[in-house]
Amino acid sequence: MNAITPTVTRGPLPASRKIHKPGSLHPDIRVPMREIALHPTAGEPPVTVYDSSGPYTDPDAVTDIAAGLPRLRETWILARGDVEAYGGRHVKPEDNGFASGDRLTPEFPLRHQPLRASGGTAVTQLAYARAGIVTPEMEFIAIRENLGRAQIKERISRDGESFGAAIPDFVTPEFVRDEVASGRAIIPANINHPESEPMIIGRNFLVKINANIGNSAVTSSMANEVDKMVWAIRWGGDTVMDLSTGRNIHNIREWIIRNSPVPIGTVPIYQALEKVGGIAEDLTWEVFRDTLVEQAEQGVDYFTIHAGVRLHFVPLTADRTTGIVSRGGSIMAKWCLHHHKESFLYEHFADICDICRAYDVAFSLGDGLRPGSIADANDAAQFAELETLGELTKIAWEKDCQVMIEGPGHVPMHKIKANMDKQLATCGEAPFYTLGPLTTDIAPGYDHITSGIGAAMIGWFGTAMLCYVTPKEHLGLPDRDDVKTGVITYKIAAHAADLAKGHPAAQIRDDALSRARFEFRWEDQFNLALDPETARDFHDQTLPKEAHKVAHFCSMCGPKFCSMRISHDIRAEAQKEGMAAMAEKFREGGDLYVPIEPES
Amino acid sequence: MNAITPTVTRGPLPASRKIHKPGSLHPDIRVPMREIALHPTAGEPPVTVYDSSGPYTDPDAVTDIAAGLPRLRETWILARGDVEAYGGRHVKPEDNGFASGDRLTPEFPLRHQPLRASGGTAVTQLAYARAGIVTPEMEFIAIRENLGRAQIKERISRDGESFGAAIPDFVTPEFVRDEVASGRAIIPANINHPESEPMIIGRNFLVKINANIGNSAVTSSMANEVDKMVWAIRWGGDTVMDLSTGRNIHNIREWIIRNSPVPIGTVPIYQALEKVGGIAEDLTWEVFRDTLVEQAEQGVDYFTIHAGVRLHFVPLTADRTTGIVSRGGSIMAKWCLHHHKESFLYEHFADICDICRAYDVAFSLGDGLRPGSIADANDAAQFAELETLGELTKIAWEKDCQVMIEGPGHVPMHKIKANMDKQLATCGEAPFYTLGPLTTDIAPGYDHITSGIGAAMIGWFGTAMLCYVTPKEHLGLPDRDDVKTGVITYKIAAHAADLAKGHPAAQIRDDALSRARFEFRWEDQFNLALDPETARDFHDQTLPKEAHKVAHFCSMCGPKFCSMRISHDIRAEAQKEGMAAMAEKFREGGDLYVPIEPES
Repeated sequence: MNAITPTVTRGPLPASRKIHKPGSLHPDIRVPMREIALHPTAGEPPVTVYDSSGPYTDPDAVTDIAAGLPRLRETWILARGDVEAYGGRHVKPEDNGFASGDRLTPEFPLRHQPLRASGGTAVTQLAYARAGIVTPEMEFIAIRENLGRAQIKERISRDGESFGAAIPDFVTPEFVRDEVASGRAIIPANINHPESEPMIIGRNFLVKINANIGNSAVTSSMANEVDKMVWAIRWGGDTVMDLSTGRNIHNIREWIIRNSPVPIGTVPIYQALEKVGGIAEDLTWEVFRDTLVEQAEQGVDYFTIHAGVRLHFVPLTADRTTGIVSRGGSIMAKWCLHHHKESFLYEHFADICDICRAYDVAFSLGDGLRPGSIADANDAAQFAELETLGELTKIAWEKDCQVMIEGPGHVPMHKIKANMDKQLATCGEAPFYTLGPLTTDIAPGYDHITSGIGAAMIGWFGTAMLCYVTPKEHLGLPDRDDVKTGVITYKIAAHAADLAKGHPAAQIRDDALSRARFEFRWEDQFNLALDPETARDFHDQTLPKEAHKVAHFCSMCGPKFCSMRISHDIRAEAQKEGMAAMAEKFREGGDLYVPIEPES
Repeated sequence: MNAITPTVTRGPLPASRKIHKPGSLHPDIRVPMREIALHPTAGEPPVTVYDSSGPYTDPDAVTDIAAGLPRLRETWILARGDVEAYGGRHVKPEDNGFASGDRLTPEFPLRHQPLRASGGTAVTQLAYARAGIVTPEMEFIAIRENLGRAQIKERISRDGESFGAAIPDFVTPEFVRDEVASGRAIIPANINHPESEPMIIGRNFLVKINANIGNSAVTSSMANEVDKMVWAIRWGGDTVMDLSTGRNIHNIREWIIRNSPVPIGTVPIYQALEKVGGIAEDLTWEVFRDTLVEQAEQGVDYFTIHAGVRLHFVPLTADRTTGIVSRGGSIMAKWCLHHHKESFLYEHFADICDICRAYDVAFSLGDGLRPGSIADANDAAQFAELETLGELTKIAWEKDCQVMIEGPGHVPMHKIKANMDKQLATCGEAPFYTLGPLTTDIAPGYDHITSGIGAAMIGWFGTAMLCYVTPKEHLGLPDRDDVKTGVITYKIAAHAADLAKGHPAAQIRDDALSRARFEFRWEDQFNLALDPETARDFHDQTLPKEAHKVAHFCSMCGPKFCSMRISHDIRAEAQKEGMAAMAEKFREGGDLYVPIEPES
């Protein structure tokens, strides 16, 4: 069924061009950015924006899905001299859920020998950071995050409330190193995923977003998932989680990773469960361990591990309105209760760290007991687990493993800040990675919005990465359109958070778009938008003609009522009268006009 | 062109039935509510929700667009003995922009004689409230707002942060009267709009939403606008503003008001401008005054009056990124600057009050200098105007006129709360009515979302009514789909705010929906949703069969990975072991299981 090579969407976004900035410490690095050209009448330089889309939007790059992306980090990884290539684990029939014949997704055509740490050392970005090494990944990230800050260096005016974050005016490679060394930020970068363009997750950097894809037993195929991955990053997904749960998990994942320029996360327990026929009680540490190695060798960049779901927390969920809503959490709870034993993930956590440090797989410590409804928000089960995640963070850090912490879920607005504050305190400022949170339960079909509200707020409070929620949440698997809607909604939330936190350069794009709006540069308005296609389409539904692209009004108000046009008239009129001078006098307290007392 | 009677969407929402609750003080009042029936397996009573949709969703009601809605408040108004019927102003050709022949929207078939206060008294709900009178409108509202509070009276547990609001456990008619008397809430209820079902706007009540409709010179017709009005209230619009700016303003408005069960707001300066051929400088107090009387006689319930745009504020907008973005504000600014005179709206404000008090038209004091971009948020122009609005509020209150205050606009998250705090302080706690605010400028096509974030937050902080923003904002006039998307988004924001403020009964619907979700009652999930049709449609895209409506899983995870299903298994398993007892012990501090120390 999947014999064809997936087709993906390629080509630049409107008026956009891929540029690459070189490094200084590491001159061979080429940091991609997207430059949006403005109309000549603007008299403004292009606006440069963060670009997660990879080579697919670069017309100069040749991408071949059947060959995978260029392995840009390979030389950096090998140059460190601390890894060895080895034969690797053999793919077993259960890795693909015993799919065979037509039902088996074909293997990815190329096989690269996996790498692992040689001699038991940690090959993690955390280990390097602690050793004082500024890796190429770190310099890459510094350049990437600095975006726009150089151009406003002279006239920086910081504004915002960052709730104790320490966002620098300018990001240096050393700052990146220090943030990683302290555990406040992570760089998900498996040595077996050299195709990835380095990115960072931490509250002193731009807020990131994750897009979930993945098939289930009920729907979807490999070609769809690869397409969705490329589609998700085109619109701004910073990482992608492959949450597949059906057959063919191994082979689908290989296609995704080989073609992904962004870090890929997974929940390994899903595949482990498939290997034991879907019976949670039959899970063993051995099966799980084998799955971790399998995925680490493929290049998964971060693992969600629900090691915080401990046996004695399960009863705390008994009176909940919606029980346990994390798939991984419920699987582990069932296992614990059935065997009346402590979770093997918790007991073997140090062993898991030993695997992760050999490949630099980052931890995303799963919130298996997150609330699934407003009624269950911030309850004893949720916070008990969070304490355990804090404990596990310390263990991981001792092993030089990178860690972020997953967060809820469904939380009403007045309970959101407590989540952030508690996470920072409990988990030693490890990055927080939240799903939404959804601020009400009553809008299935619109949960990108119910959760976009919570996401913007918790991003402002300090969450480093926001996991998107699509309109299909609670109802079905997202299709292509849902993926885009989810990504754009979360780019909005992340950007709103960046603005509110006071990121020095975040407002550049808002200002450029607003100037375009005020000056009736419609094309620039569309091109600067997060989704130029939709903006243009909406405009053209009522004013389709090319002439309307330069019209000094739109269909909302028509020409006579256009406040922007009138504002221009006002400016012109005022220039005669020296409005600026008038304004100055007024600001100084002078009153140019005698105020007229209202009649009463 | 508009010769046909508009068709509107009628009939109840799924599983819903219109009920009516009677009054005690005023036994003849019948307060409409929507009762959503649950599946028998739920073993739960129906969920009753606020119902703004009017008789259109009542299968027992006969509605005839050409005759208008029943005039339910007429007897209440006449019973007060303080109004007189009179001939009223004659409709003039300029009222409809000199449209004629085929281009003239036909007059509404029936004409009711207008009423006005007799003998110069104030016939406002504020005047009655101050006189200690509990009107039928007030009792109607008390019953309407109490929704659900009766059923949880015994087990009320208040939760939330209301930032100084004083939300009672139970709303009495006397509480409504007192809130109106203090100016903290308004009841928009023109005596010439007796078709309206009373509702209240105030921060100690449920957060309300407004939907804007209206044609422009470029698009739309009467039939579309009436349809949009009925459509907007079907999904939860609490008031509707008719922002028409083209020809036929008078006749379109008449069709809308006669068929609207919710208060109708307008911006009279739009029509006044049409009457002077679109030349702002040609506006006069006489033309404006005539327009106010015209609209008051028709039954407009609240007027946006941009009387805060004073001459000496205009220069403060000179350096703005987006100048003046309010249409009314820009018109007045242009007038002031051209004539170099103080605004006639400001100078004649007491005269305007005299008109409003004779019909009970509430004020929505317009924020003509609201920021239209992140760059302009919370600037000197915006806050100077707000001070003036506070001053005008006092004048209106002296005249027994009801007042709410309009607010921004475009505001980044960290600057939102200052808006609310300043408004409360400056305007004596008069209700705040905000447009969004939009928390970033970079997402045209998605401004329902950029603004839904800000709306939820400012609603939480104390804004009484949220003016919706549709996906078409900045790009074009909303069509039917946009109206629905805007309304649902704002219902989400308003409900999220109610939850966070700690409204005693707000969570009932969330809890019912979450229980339905946990118990796989798919039909109940759809029916309890803000938009049952979309929820069902999304679910059915992957699992269309009837059998799937009772399936204990969905296409997101498939059967093996359904956390909710596993949670049920856990509960069942735990019951054998007395999980509740275990949980109790754990909560008491007992540790049933010896914690296993992690290996390190």
